[in-house]
Amino acid sequence: MGVNSNRVEHFDSHESTIKIQDETMQIHAVQLPPHRTTLHKLRQRVSEIFFPDDPLYRFKNQTCFKKFLLALQYLFPIFQWAPNYNLTLLRSDLISGLTISSLAIPQGISYAKLANLPPIIGLYSSFVPPLIYSLLGSSRHLGVGPVSIASLVMGSMLSEKISYTQEPILYLGLAFTATFFAGVFQASLGILRLGFVIDFLSKATLVGFTGGAAVIVSLQQLKGLLGIVHFTSKMQIIPVMISVFKQRHEWSWQTILLGFGFLVFLLTTRHISLRKPKLFWVSAAAPLTSVILSTILVFLLRNTTHQISVIGHLPKGVNPPSANMLYFNGPYLALAIKTGIITGILSLTEGIAVGRTFASLKNYQVDGNKEMMAIGLMNIAGSCSSCYVTTGSFSRSAVNYNAGAQTTVSNIIMAAAVLVTLLFLMPLFYYTPNVVLAAIIITAVIGLIDYQSAYKLWKVDKLDFLACLCSFFGVLFISVPLGLGIAVIISVFKILLHVTRPNTLVLGNIPGTQIFHNINQYIEALRVPSFLILAVESPIYFANSTYLQERILRWVREEEEHIKANNGAPLKCIILDMTAVTAIDTSGLDTLCELRKMLEKRSLELVLANPVGNVMEKLHKSNILDSFGLKGVYLTVGEAVADISSIWKAQP
Amino acid sequence: MGVNSNRVEHFDSHESTIKIQDETMQIHAVQLPPHRTTLHKLRQRVSEIFFPDDPLYRFKNQTCFKKFLLALQYLFPIFQWAPNYNLTLLRSDLISGLTISSLAIPQGISYAKLANLPPIIGLYSSFVPPLIYSLLGSSRHLGVGPVSIASLVMGSMLSEKISYTQEPILYLGLAFTATFFAGVFQASLGILRLGFVIDFLSKATLVGFTGGAAVIVSLQQLKGLLGIVHFTSKMQIIPVMISVFKQRHEWSWQTILLGFGFLVFLLTTRHISLRKPKLFWVSAAAPLTSVILSTILVFLLRNTTHQISVIGHLPKGVNPPSANMLYFNGPYLALAIKTGIITGILSLTEGIAVGRTFASLKNYQVDGNKEMMAIGLMNIAGSCSSCYVTTGSFSRSAVNYNAGAQTTVSNIIMAAAVLVTLLFLMPLFYYTPNVVLAAIIITAVIGLIDYQSAYKLWKVDKLDFLACLCSFFGVLFISVPLGLGIAVIISVFKILLHVTRPNTLVLGNIPGTQIFHNINQYIEALRVPSFLILAVESPIYFANSTYLQERILRWVREEEEHIKANNGAPLKCIILDMTAVTAIDTSGLDTLCELRKMLEKRSLELVLANPVGNVMEKLHKSNILDSFGLKGVYLTVGEAVADISSIWKAQP
Repeated sequence: MGVNSNRVEHFDSHESTIKIQDETMQIHAVQLPPHRTTLHKLRQRVSEIFFPDDPLYRFKNQTCFKKFLLALQYLFPIFQWAPNYNLTLLRSDLISGLTISSLAIPQGISYAKLANLPPIIGLYSSFVPPLIYSLLGSSRHLGVGPVSIASLVMGSMLSEKISYTQEPILYLGLAFTATFFAGVFQASLGILRLGFVIDFLSKATLVGFTGGAAVIVSLQQLKGLLGIVHFTSKMQIIPVMISVFKQRHEWSWQTILLGFGFLVFLLTTRHISLRKPKLFWVSAAAPLTSVILSTILVFLLRNTTHQISVIGHLPKGVNPPSANMLYFNGPYLALAIKTGIITGILSLTEGIAVGRTFASLKNYQVDGNKEMMAIGLMNIAGSCSSCYVTTGSFSRSAVNYNAGAQTTVSNIIMAAAVLVTLLFLMPLFYYTPNVVLAAIIITAVIGLIDYQSAYKLWKVDKLDFLACLCSFFGVLFISVPLGLGIAVIISVFKILLHVTRPNTLVLGNIPGTQIFHNINQYIEALRVPSFLILAVESPIYFANSTYLQERILRWVREEEEHIKANNGAPLKCIILDMTAVTAIDTSGLDTLCELRKMLEKRSLELVLANPVGNVMEKLHKSNILDSFGLKGVYLTVGEAVADISSIWKAQP
Repeated sequence: MGVNSNRVEHFDSHESTIKIQDETMQIHAVQLPPHRTTLHKLRQRVSEIFFPDDPLYRFKNQTCFKKFLLALQYLFPIFQWAPNYNLTLLRSDLISGLTISSLAIPQGISYAKLANLPPIIGLYSSFVPPLIYSLLGSSRHLGVGPVSIASLVMGSMLSEKISYTQEPILYLGLAFTATFFAGVFQASLGILRLGFVIDFLSKATLVGFTGGAAVIVSLQQLKGLLGIVHFTSKMQIIPVMISVFKQRHEWSWQTILLGFGFLVFLLTTRHISLRKPKLFWVSAAAPLTSVILSTILVFLLRNTTHQISVIGHLPKGVNPPSANMLYFNGPYLALAIKTGIITGILSLTEGIAVGRTFASLKNYQVDGNKEMMAIGLMNIAGSCSSCYVTTGSFSRSAVNYNAGAQTTVSNIIMAAAVLVTLLFLMPLFYYTPNVVLAAIIITAVIGLIDYQSAYKLWKVDKLDFLACLCSFFGVLFISVPLGLGIAVIISVFKILLHVTRPNTLVLGNIPGTQIFHNINQYIEALRVPSFLILAVESPIYFANSTYLQERILRWVREEEEHIKANNGAPLKCIILDMTAVTAIDTSGLDTLCELRKMLEKRSLELVLANPVGNVMEKLHKSNILDSFGLKGVYLTVGEAVADISSIWKAQP
């Protein structure tokens, strides 16, 4: 046994209480983990919480200059790949960059309308943020720009308080302010290494939420698709449907014809690309094609079809500065901060998830906290240059990946294409009909209704499915942020429920082995006479200590009744398998003590098997082990059964 | 192997994917738990959540008449012991009942003042509720009446919005309304079997909270103790101390002399009883003695000491009905409901905890959900008969227990004594000085400052101690309900933190055995070459799946670096010990899949050891086992190592 002296000393002092020796068979002692100071434990705990990925490991054993280079590469990943960049890579990036820009331009205009912002803001948002991301971001395939969910949430939250038609300047300023706070929130999550906050949006929640949001977004498009002029400003399904049918006299058949025509075209191209992934460019090019075709059509028919609403005049030129439009006081500050945090967290979730998906396809890793900083800084910069919330978009990234993008240079190419559009091509959009934008949005969000995942949730985990349903209907019928809130609460409640009502299993011996397993799962597992072996499947906390105490007593009662009915050997010992008790708090310690006393009064012995390191430490510190006596803690259930049986034989 | 046919059928269909057979050694198959329908699983889950104590087990296999009797006994526990009641028991109950009434009368008057209610309400509250509890309650030692914490909270929450001096009728009505809602809340927790809600107030939280509340209560008594007339209506420590020193000109030396005299007397008696538990009656009788002595003193000196404020006139007679004073509408309804829920949950926590403490001392069990119904109904009835919130009081129950109470008849005796007081003795309290009530309150609450428990928390669990400190200072500096809220959030956060950042341990083999244990805890445990054996110590959830994936990859990276540095055998296989993974959700399943793919790309094998029943079920349902192939799941780590090693040997 190779021991270091420090450790031996520590154990010697407690040996009498913990070490167990027996002549008849080898019984192993349960050991305390090596002694650590509070400071040391705290440091380790903090580093596990905030630095689980050990971000500084690259810097170990390096020269100063190398360290500086590594730090530079860490802050600006562009330095990692720039030295090896060549013409072959450029060719791939050029193709993919142009492909995504053909998607980005119509999407930018459409999503800005979704957030009730002027269409030009959507184009601005596809220019500055991709440039910043290409400097800071660590994903090679992320296509950056505005996304539907964040646009919808920003639009719905701001419009609830302010009318974008009556106070457009205030509305625009608040959108930039919300973007600024979204960026600050995202960057601080990254800097403070609190990235795990976004983990609380479970997949089930997100499936329901995005599905609900997609329905909401699609319904909003009925305004454009039917040509309705006076539409409700509400988002919920009921007022929207009422508004659609009340304004039937405003429906315009020309708009409907045009809209559904292009919708069918776009959905068909989407279907083709889904069927044959190689034809991804069919759906990627379709939005721009639709915009061009519909614009030409409306231009040609401009003298006969006044009923089709068009985008109209768009200003030429690059992003104007907007730092002076940010509000840092006044009555709407709280609204802007709230909107910023919610859109920030949603767009972050999408960006990180998309980045991770494509990184795992190409087998590289994306550093979550770094991505948060990159996305956050990109939004802060965006808010000062007339951009609203942007992130890594799923549709753009998928097209980018399929088009063969190799590095973030494709984002730079896209930004350049958008720049050209901004500088020279804006007048061409004058006759672009709004109805085509509606069709583009519907096609984009319809893929977000992930009924297959929902079905899988139903099949695998009913509670996850419930969380999914709640967020879906919460978004549809109540409101977007409340639906999200309900879903998060259900997800957290699920964790707490698992902790509050943990499983307790009866274990039995698998004949011919020292293995003890759940007798429900393993039919060959046999109960050991006179023993009741229970496994507690959760940490013992204040939230479940009362329950566990009552539940264990009920197991004992039921076992005794069972023995009585079958004339079996009387129950003498209860073994608690603590393998899955990964933590214990003061209430849990009290419960164990109490339980031992209550069982003692009924002449039943209670012993523990395999307490893990920190549980053992706490048992020791709280002096509970003393009450358990010399033979109260065993390394395995098997050794406990063997040792206790041999003692019983010795003293009949 | 004794198998039932149903089970065999079920397994046969999956045998190809799960069962593992090997010629060289006996490898046990991991089995799925027996198939259950969704409805069956749901029923079992619901019964674990709401009926963990199987409350109907007494009714099994009984005749109809017996069932009726048992139901009657269940609803009115008085029928359980009444048939066996005899004179010996009555003698004990008479003595203890009179003893607690001597405590209950001065306490009732004092606590009512703490809630800013007329003193007579405190006596009313010691009459009706004990009678109702003695019919419904299942604890034999609970002494029922108003308690300090709930009185303080009700007083502070109501006074924040309404002045009890300017609108005494409204204030009183709201206090009754709050009591009504407290009762409704408590009873519904019991009826809906949601008793576990109070488990979320952890012991750490309560130690801090009651300590903080005790300090607040004591500071409030400075008003009475110093004889200050114009006192702040705030509760926090800072405004109270400012008020005390600003009003120095109102300090009255006669009051101070009298107050501190009796305070020293009361504290001395308390000290004596603490030292010698047999002399419990010394501290039990001290409050009434102080009231009598001080009343006589003030009466004798009534012509010379006008500065000492006295209780004054108290109406004679039993509780007047107050159902007509309840508010069920109006602007203060929300306040009454909020106050009711918070005082309800606090008084419930105290009542249940006290009941459980004394029940465990006498080795009987208290049914939490039934107690909640009893306490709730008692408060509903109380609110209609001029009583405010009551529960099982710790001080009264302790005296009751020490004085030898055997059944709840002692509560009936106490109620009778209070009745006599109400009918005949009220004029005697005219000259009772308020300062003595202040001294009684301070003596009562000073015992609630449990610094020993706080020290134990510090020693055993630093995070529990932090929760304790936060609730203590939250109550002192912010407000009583907010302090409580902060503490609950910290406690829940602690659970979530444990789930979000679970431990992952490296396991090693204990030589000569098939046992694998944490190499940090067991120094003799040796790593197995070419294997990395990791134990995940938590369910795998959406909240930790990303973390676990990254952490496991980091373990692999570190292991590979370590092997490189030491020229060891190359890593070939990672075994995940799933014993402590007590649940998995869809995100967790995706993570396992992803992890397997990522490791495969690095030519590393991933196998699972000992997945528990429901995890195995989900692995199976989500078809992940297919991707793990025939040899991906083993019953124990030992078998996995043996089997995989033998395969490697076979194909060198």
